[in-house]
Amino acid sequence: MTVAVGIGTWSRRHLLDVEGLTRDELERILALAVEMRAARAERRHRSLLEAEVVGLAFYEASTRTRVSFELAAKALGATTVDLSVSGSSVVKGESLVDTLRTLERTGVTTLVLRHGSSGAAHLAARTTGLRVVNGGDGIHAHPTQALLDALTLRETFGSLEGVLLTIVGDVVHSRVARSNIHCLLTLGARVRVAGPPAWVAGFDAWPEVEVATRLDDGLRGADAVMALRAQLERGASLPPEVAEWRLDEERMRLADPGAVVMHPGPTNEGVEITADLANGPRSLVGRQVENGVPVRMAVLALVAGVA
Amino acid sequence: MTVAVGIGTWSRRHLLDVEGLTRDELERILALAVEMRAARAERRHRSLLEAEVVGLAFYEASTRTRVSFELAAKALGATTVDLSVSGSSVVKGESLVDTLRTLERTGVTTLVLRHGSSGAAHLAARTTGLRVVNGGDGIHAHPTQALLDALTLRETFGSLEGVLLTIVGDVVHSRVARSNIHCLLTLGARVRVAGPPAWVAGFDAWPEVEVATRLDDGLRGADAVMALRAQLERGASLPPEVAEWRLDEERMRLADPGAVVMHPGPTNEGVEITADLANGPRSLVGRQVENGVPVRMAVLALVAGVA
Amino acid sequence: MTVAVGIGTWSRRHLLDVEGLTRDELERILALAVEMRAARAERRHRSLLEAEVVGLAFYEASTRTRVSFELAAKALGATTVDLSVSGSSVVKGESLVDTLRTLERTGVTTLVLRHGSSGAAHLAARTTGLRVVNGGDGIHAHPTQALLDALTLRETFGSLEGVLLTIVGDVVHSRVARSNIHCLLTLGARVRVAGPPAWVAGFDAWPEVEVATRLDDGLRGADAVMALRAQLERGASLPPEVAEWRLDEERMRLADPGAVVMHPGPTNEGVEITADLANGPRSLVGRQVENGVPVRMAVLALVAGVA
Repeated sequence: MTVAVGIGTWSRRHLLDVEGLTRDELERILALAVEMRAARAERRHRSLLEAEVVGLAFYEASTRTRVSFELAAKALGATTVDLSVSGSSVVKGESLVDTLRTLERTGVTTLVLRHGSSGAAHLAARTTGLRVVNGGDGIHAHPTQALLDALTLRETFGSLEGVLLTIVGDVVHSRVARSNIHCLLTLGARVRVAGPPAWVAGFDAWPEVEVATRLDDGLRGADAVMALRAQLERGASLPPEVAEWRLDEERMRLADPGAVVMHPGPTNEGVEITADLANGPRSLVGRQVENGVPVRMAVLALVAGVA
Repeated sequence: MTVAVGIGTWSRRHLLDVEGLTRDELERILALAVEMRAARAERRHRSLLEAEVVGLAFYEASTRTRVSFELAAKALGATTVDLSVSGSSVVKGESLVDTLRTLERTGVTTLVLRHGSSGAAHLAARTTGLRVVNGGDGIHAHPTQALLDALTLRETFGSLEGVLLTIVGDVVHSRVARSNIHCLLTLGARVRVAGPPAWVAGFDAWPEVEVATRLDDGLRGADAVMALRAQLERGASLPPEVAEWRLDEERMRLADPGAVVMHPGPTNEGVEITADLANGPRSLVGRQVENGVPVRMAVLALVAGVA
Repeated sequence: MTVAVGIGTWSRRHLLDVEGLTRDELERILALAVEMRAARAERRHRSLLEAEVVGLAFYEASTRTRVSFELAAKALGATTVDLSVSGSSVVKGESLVDTLRTLERTGVTTLVLRHGSSGAAHLAARTTGLRVVNGGDGIHAHPTQALLDALTLRETFGSLEGVLLTIVGDVVHSRVARSNIHCLLTLGARVRVAGPPAWVAGFDAWPEVEVATRLDDGLRGADAVMALRAQLERGASLPPEVAEWRLDEERMRLADPGAVVMHPGPTNEGVEITADLANGPRSLVGRQVENGVPVRMAVLALVAGVA
């Protein structure tokens, strides 16, 4: 059994990053996610992945990503197995590659991997026969987050063509930012990054990305603004001017009048965004989370070759 | 599909505490639990909750409660997802409410919440659209424990009318005690609390509850005696006279000759109860645990509106 | 529904160790494992254990054993429930026996237990009504590991009759070694242990086991060589001459020319075995892991009385 969405083709066994995916491939994932959302509500495709065993290997803390991948897999009938780090052989000193090869030999077919090292998902794909879906690797990539953000934006604006997203905050340590940039540019949107100089360093080398080091420059004309949490666990430090970059309703008036606010979560309310803004009428934060399960259903089905 | 038990009606989306439930509602839960026990043995109702996603969020240690909720949900065909604290975004500083709202948006329909803060389950019910079942909140309430205790007592004595339960030990820090008092009084039983003064402080303000500060006063005439563990994790300290309050076979002779012994578990054998008594012929401890799964099956079905 | 393999009979409710199993019983498990491997690939027997609730209680770190038991149970349609130690009532001081009795009363039918204390699985079998499968107890036994090793060796050599396995390294602390010795001797193979004197102490009292305290004596004539990790968590210390016992391709030339290499995993590459050898053409390490799930499917079906 397969699910046909009639848009583009799919031939990849992995989803490691957004970079390198064609516009057709991205469109296909988003179209399938819309179908999957309806299917889940109507309890269709409940056996689509019944031959699959999805291993959830989260080497970094996660609620929304792990839960949404698990529910996506279960909604399509896959067997799931959780590989928490505490209590696994990782504490006996086993290497990541050895652990993943072991998983493969137990019958796990698809690996969802979150890991603190940039490139971990590529390593897994190169050294095992597992289908690999990157659930976030270091500061490198978080492709399913970018896909759910793109779906959220497209459903908000109708089309992504020419829509301007400004990403504000600790961009330099953010895998979410990198994957969003690749995804949105490929889909025809515009992207600006904004933050204290240390937090946007190096992005001026990316020709299609605008860089702003003053908040008003960053927000001017933006249709959507995405706030990022400081990735303290990746060596980020809070610059002295961090409070000047906190998004609130007043500062949002510097953006487009109807501008929306996004955040990949978890938010630190009062630090990079106020609670009022994160939970207010401009906020798409809830919609982002809602789109997580259908996007991940689509991705799991695509890499399994059944869609 | 729904399960009809023909007793009373049900209109609540949550089970937050026992306080406020009518006698009819309590009777309905107990009657449905009896039906669920038979159904489980006969493997009926295996798809009753197939549209539900039950999130198990245990922010405090638990074996029997978490396992019995999980098995209850699975016995009725629900999808379950475990939200352990270690490894979740709680370690990134996310607030409880934000975590729960996230869960709701991933498609979790029913939340089973254990939390160290009294009122956590009410907070969850008030701030999310989740069905909420309280798995124990601080010193406030543990309604499913009270329900399984009531079922155990009723099956032992035939009727709860006039049965006297004495709760011995650290009553003041015990959510189990509070929920048992509400549940048993509503169902027509009598309740006495007994312990060193610091451990029964304030219960004299509860008109229908007898308070005893000497063990013989506490046990005299009791049909059932429930020992409680000192809740050291909630600031309880062991009073110097604690050894005088340890239940053993000899002290049980102060109660009714056929008096039974209960304990919500886990027991600290040799501290509040001897191993001989906890495992002896008077003990209902095993029956209490056995009744946990069917009571929780009933509760999950009721809040889901299918019973 | 039952699975017939037509070899021997089965009447045990537990698999606690290999010691005491007859050759017929061992043959029956191995034959059923072969059937289960095919059944899994063909998606047969998917409801064989649908009435069973398998509790996975791993009190020591594990990836391959826990995951393969969980996938074995799920492949046969059992309900599984995970009992991680962190987050369970063990942290409230509950005894192992009390925890296991509680599990039994929640409806768990089969317990897979890994525990640091030798004899823990026997204790569980003696004090509860659970079917108990030993997933490794202290330095005592690891029967399913021995079974999967025996299956791997038999599929490599066609027959175990007269095949010589040398177990190299920290034998004295190894439950894998003890179970392999019992299993292979019963099945007609020969076993030699080799290591620094402290690591093979006492094995000279085992009449059928050869003991070597020099590597060349250990490897001479061996058809298969199994390297063991130093069990530092069980009080092993690394003897000064440990480097002399590291298996590499050159030292393997002391064994039979076609000799194969095994390791129960996780390997510490570069310590007891080189990465080249562990991942090279002589290595059966991957095959060992692959055989874990079918062997455990067979064991779960046998103790449940459906095979």
